[in-house]
Amino acid sequence: MRAIIIHGAGDIRVENVPDPQLREPTDAVVRVVRACICGSDLWPYRSMPVSERGERIGHEFIGVVEDVGSEVVGLRTGDLVVAPFVWADNTCDFCREGLQTSCRHGGLWARNGIDGGQGEAVRVPQAQGTLVKLPVAEDSTLLPSLLSLSDVLPTGYHCAHTAGVTPRTTVTVIGDGAVGLCAVLSAKRLGAERIILMGHHKDRTDLGRKFGATDVVAERSQEGIQKVRELTGGDGTHRVLECVGLMEAIETAFAVVRDGGVVSRVGAPQYAKVPMDFGVFMRNITLTGGVAPARAYIDELLPDVLEGKIQPGLVFDRAVGLEEVSDGYRAMANRTALKVLVRP
Amino acid sequence: MRAIIIHGAGDIRVENVPDPQLREPTDAVVRVVRACICGSDLWPYRSMPVSERGERIGHEFIGVVEDVGSEVVGLRTGDLVVAPFVWADNTCDFCREGLQTSCRHGGLWARNGIDGGQGEAVRVPQAQGTLVKLPVAEDSTLLPSLLSLSDVLPTGYHCAHTAGVTPRTTVTVIGDGAVGLCAVLSAKRLGAERIILMGHHKDRTDLGRKFGATDVVAERSQEGIQKVRELTGGDGTHRVLECVGLMEAIETAFAVVRDGGVVSRVGAPQYAKVPMDFGVFMRNITLTGGVAPARAYIDELLPDVLEGKIQPGLVFDRAVGLEEVSDGYRAMANRTALKVLVRP
Repeated sequence: MRAIIIHGAGDIRVENVPDPQLREPTDAVVRVVRACICGSDLWPYRSMPVSERGERIGHEFIGVVEDVGSEVVGLRTGDLVVAPFVWADNTCDFCREGLQTSCRHGGLWARNGIDGGQGEAVRVPQAQGTLVKLPVAEDSTLLPSLLSLSDVLPTGYHCAHTAGVTPRTTVTVIGDGAVGLCAVLSAKRLGAERIILMGHHKDRTDLGRKFGATDVVAERSQEGIQKVRELTGGDGTHRVLECVGLMEAIETAFAVVRDGGVVSRVGAPQYAKVPMDFGVFMRNITLTGGVAPARAYIDELLPDVLEGKIQPGLVFDRAVGLEEVSDGYRAMANRTALKVLVRP
Repeated sequence: MRAIIIHGAGDIRVENVPDPQLREPTDAVVRVVRACICGSDLWPYRSMPVSERGERIGHEFIGVVEDVGSEVVGLRTGDLVVAPFVWADNTCDFCREGLQTSCRHGGLWARNGIDGGQGEAVRVPQAQGTLVKLPVAEDSTLLPSLLSLSDVLPTGYHCAHTAGVTPRTTVTVIGDGAVGLCAVLSAKRLGAERIILMGHHKDRTDLGRKFGATDVVAERSQEGIQKVRELTGGDGTHRVLECVGLMEAIETAFAVVRDGGVVSRVGAPQYAKVPMDFGVFMRNITLTGGVAPARAYIDELLPDVLEGKIQPGLVFDRAVGLEEVSDGYRAMANRTALKVLVRP
């Protein structure tokens, strides 16, 4: 079969790889119907050292079950399923607590011999715990929104949820990437009436307004901070959803959060330390968030997607076939595409 | 009147200062019956540059109201009262949210012309919001425990409360100082069944056991971390209460907290940055806590003290008069005293 292999920064290729097969009785094999490119795929795309052998890549997909292991209950050939971006048994103590990202028997896609999502098919470990059946056909127009359940929507939702967004909290979202926009949508879903989106790409912030942002701050750095403060009587907002992962975004977050407030981060951190000094201590600021246990939120978010209450699939503004995936990476890296859908 | 003045590191003096008088209609004047020395007073005691004029010091006291301003309702001459370690109007939006440490009209004792608690009397700004009436006589044997409501008990309680300690959470407390021991007591009060106390002063950890610690880890650094992990099946505890304020304590906290867990810090940070890198992100660790809004917790904790359900006053293991306060500082700095009570 064909799959995407990354051989280093900027070097995305489509190659022939062995067809996936069941190895463990808990496995399934899934033919990929839709995959996509994640903002986090851009980190290796920008910085991976050259590799002759290369690495599989991709961790978001919808597909059709082609084969199931003998211990997999509840899934059968022909089922349409979505995979969260971390596979997990969904039965261990961490999974039962809703932290499938720390599953005792789980792991990441495209690591340690596990297939990546950007390819024609995938061997899915712990298939029963990992995959969620979708009650639609594989040509449904809902597929983009359903695909967002793999990562980008639950990541935005994890940000808003761990921040403790409620109808009584004001919210700032930092970052107008696909995760930031899904954080806006999530804050809206959790009842926030005031949602300030910090971002400077007008087409993206326009989608942010559609998702529920009440204010957009296009200014950056100190000017942006000043603007959020002006909008909030000098105090900042109760909750800040940091959806970038850069030190500057974290610093902005601490500067626009209200005393006693919460900063939640879901942007994969490109920093090692966070400035939580005596001043932050005196203001009682909490820093929460982390990698999103997408599986924990799918059951909750799926009905809203099926009923069309939310349309997170609008973050996909370009679609490519497997052979054009390299163009998709380039477009996302250039910011000429927000998020790219892949049709293998 | 006589009051303590600090003139630099190690230089604690008793001096004559003007008697406090009402300045604002919201003031009260309180004659101090009991004060005490805080672990945080030891920071200037160890490092303050020499000052000819010196600074008032102290922020914990119980006293008798001697005079009240015309706008103070609910307090009268002769009332025994306890003061939280931050004064506040208790009516602004932050105060109503239980964050009196960010009061729009409040501030710190012994700063900006406000009296310190270590002296014969204190002018109390925002007296109605700040002071809490105590229904006992000024010779009550409960005075040490009631005095702990000023700071050390609510600080420990803030740590456990913001960490989200419940009967279902396991807890590690880092630090066997008076705050750490009050954090143990608070975790126990909130129902924690497993409380591991990290500290290496046996007399203190013995008191910690009395307050509810189920395990004591006397080993330090990597050995201590290893021990906590052994006690918790390798996972660490759901909640970690960091009651020291040093970088090593924060690092230990992240090393002994369970994935998905919470570190709460109430030790005044002697560091500027916290290691919350990609690894911590992948483990979904939350960092919360901060300076304790003591006033927010006094109403809740006072009945338990009055009924003798908790005895936080046991943290006082030495009492001195005003003239011996310098000895008290020395004893706490040497760790020959846990916490020193002052009888002016």
